[in-house]
Amino acid sequence: MNETLKVIKERRSCRRFADTGLQRDVLSQIIEAGRIAPTGSNVQKVKFYVVSGKALEDLVEAARQAFAEMDENEEGLFPTIKYSIRKSKQGRFDFIYGAPILVVLTCEKGYANAMADCVCANMSMMLAAASLKVDSCYINQLHWLDGNRKIMKALGAGGEETICCSLALGYGDPTAIGKEKKITGSPVVELK
Amino acid sequence: MNETLKVIKERRSCRRFADTGLQRDVLSQIIEAGRIAPTGSNVQKVKFYVVSGKALEDLVEAARQAFAEMDENEEGLFPTIKYSIRKSKQGRFDFIYGAPILVVLTCEKGYANAMADCVCANMSMMLAAASLKVDSCYINQLHWLDGNRKIMKALGAGGEETICCSLALGYGDPTAIGKEKKITGSPVVELK
Repeated sequence: MNETLKVIKERRSCRRFADTGLQRDVLSQIIEAGRIAPTGSNVQKVKFYVVSGKALEDLVEAARQAFAEMDENEEGLFPTIKYSIRKSKQGRFDFIYGAPILVVLTCEKGYANAMADCVCANMSMMLAAASLKVDSCYINQLHWLDGNRKIMKALGAGGEETICCSLALGYGDPTAIGKEKKITGSPVVELK
Repeated sequence: MNETLKVIKERRSCRRFADTGLQRDVLSQIIEAGRIAPTGSNVQKVKFYVVSGKALEDLVEAARQAFAEMDENEEGLFPTIKYSIRKSKQGRFDFIYGAPILVVLTCEKGYANAMADCVCANMSMMLAAASLKVDSCYINQLHWLDGNRKIMKALGAGGEETICCSLALGYGDPTAIGKEKKITGSPVVELK
């Protein structure tokens, strides 16, 4: 098995981060891996917000407030959204598991490949991070809060942008040991 | 630069394939890279249709017919869709650039993370392919034709499925030389 396949196989999502930051050049290599990912017709419209420090604290608090204003009994809500609302109403919800860095990916609103292009960049960054022994977790919460006034303001994002996804980056808390991942779903159908 | 970062940097989309197929174990390693990609809350709901041979010829023809029935002057159509419609009306349109294999990714209709999960799997397969010197191209056409009766029938997909994306796999025609990719967009904004 080559190095890349090994990285793909061994990558795990991290849900408890230590507060150790990333070295500048390590972070930079991860972001560049996102920027070189494919985009529809090579339009390169993905915008990368690299958020840390006080700006990240403010964003986490903005998300908590936004969720706290929502109703978890609303019909059709995804279970993780319900959980985010409940925790936020209790006054404590850190949607990035204590990560020191969050990369938020946005695109032009109405652009047909917005999700496709942003998620390709996110996955590319995840694998670049794993290859550099940096832990990460794909974060959906800001996509669900896309367009929320508090969130767009915290990012300084314009009304013409749509938030597609984000990625928490850092080093996993050494006491949080990842389990081996088992494939139990993801069926394969062969048509010839 | 480690091997994975090198693969990420050097991967190119291939838009002209030779008809050489993939060895069974090579294809299998690429599919497994998609199946191990992260999914929201680890639900593993992505379904992988691995299409080749006669089934792929039928799918290409079904897509051509579906596009030929559309109106390229409809408002708000993405440029590549307009092109697909025009070419299909002219009676010739191979949306997979002659690739011998297409992997089509579907998910449960209405599942909130359908696009996120499928695109992560697609990007993971692209990089696995690149690490194995297999060429690929992210294909959007079937996502645009999602729900079309001819397409769903060609896949044998049920009405409860949604097509999120697909990936053409094969070996690039040796006369088609990829240009170096330059990053000209994809802005980075740092917030601290």
